[in-house]
Amino acid sequence: MITIYGKRSSGNCYKLQLLLDQLGHDYRWIEVDSARGETRTAEYLAKNPNGKVPLLELDDGRRLAESDAILCYLAEGTSYLPNDAWLRAQTLQWLFFEQYSHEPYIAVARFISLYLPADHPRRAELPQLHQQGAKALAVMEAHLASHDWLAGERYSIADIALYAYTHCAADGGFDLAVYPAILAWLARVKSQPGYSPLQH
Amino acid sequence: MITIYGKRSSGNCYKLQLLLDQLGHDYRWIEVDSARGETRTAEYLAKNPNGKVPLLELDDGRRLAESDAILCYLAEGTSYLPNDAWLRAQTLQWLFFEQYSHEPYIAVARFISLYLPADHPRRAELPQLHQQGAKALAVMEAHLASHDWLAGERYSIADIALYAYTHCAADGGFDLAVYPAILAWLARVKSQPGYSPLQH
Repeated sequence: MITIYGKRSSGNCYKLQLLLDQLGHDYRWIEVDSARGETRTAEYLAKNPNGKVPLLELDDGRRLAESDAILCYLAEGTSYLPNDAWLRAQTLQWLFFEQYSHEPYIAVARFISLYLPADHPRRAELPQLHQQGAKALAVMEAHLASHDWLAGERYSIADIALYAYTHCAADGGFDLAVYPAILAWLARVKSQPGYSPLQH
Repeated sequence: MITIYGKRSSGNCYKLQLLLDQLGHDYRWIEVDSARGETRTAEYLAKNPNGKVPLLELDDGRRLAESDAILCYLAEGTSYLPNDAWLRAQTLQWLFFEQYSHEPYIAVARFISLYLPADHPRRAELPQLHQQGAKALAVMEAHLASHDWLAGERYSIADIALYAYTHCAADGGFDLAVYPAILAWLARVKSQPGYSPLQH
């Protein structure tokens, strides 16, 4: 059985929970709390030298880091990762968009808002994070205004990866009411078979 | 013939130049200077709504953004992207590492150092960028101390993606002399057939 080292309340880790639950795939989940320094212990760094969750571990001890790389690996051969070369490229395009243009703003705003004290100096970053995060949401809104899904005509890991932090963007102070196409897409994702919610 | 919209001096764009030159693949290069706002024009945003270079355009008008997604698409079916599922996953792991844990520090330090005036307020970001960038370089150094290449036993797009901003990290104030395994790997990349240098 595969093992996921992850933090249940992290969107990056939730992506794997969601895909695995939708695939009906058995897995062991080992909770690793990065907020308590558990990703920086010598034992964990031996597993993932980059000191981050999530991490996938196979029964034979092989390990894979990076949430979106793990999504691709687990989705290979299923309908969640298209076989067609162009659709596969589009899927990857959205995954890299997520990690470069979306997560660093929307996930970080959520982290600061939910977990840091009201007088923490990092709260000064929020206006800039909101501005950059809004750009990412505008790119998604424009696409979803004329498409049901992000990559091609089917629900895929591109939707899973971007759902993870978009559906809880309000936690970081984003008002999703101004993005009607995103709201409709969030509802479509939530109605997919095997859907399981983010655990706070 | 495929078209690349890119900025020759950008490491993210250079990745595509390097792969295409090594593949011996013909391409048209259209220079788009993000520093002059050329990625924010209405015409360019119609091509890439995220307003970034590089962008791949096929003859039939289809377009693909995100440097590392383009690398995967162009390398499919060649030795630069492994066929084996696990090696492919490792390749993707390094590509996502590059975009999340490496480029935002090492490329941004280079941008600030090379292109912003000596008294620019963004220079205050450099110490933090150097600290985070050093973490990424340490992860690479540890891997390369016992492996010739990043993903498996062959040169791949994982090496190309990370070479792009690592080989010019000194532009941003990083001293690579303290990373002997990285220096040896940079020399191995440079000696690959079809290698072409970054154009400043």
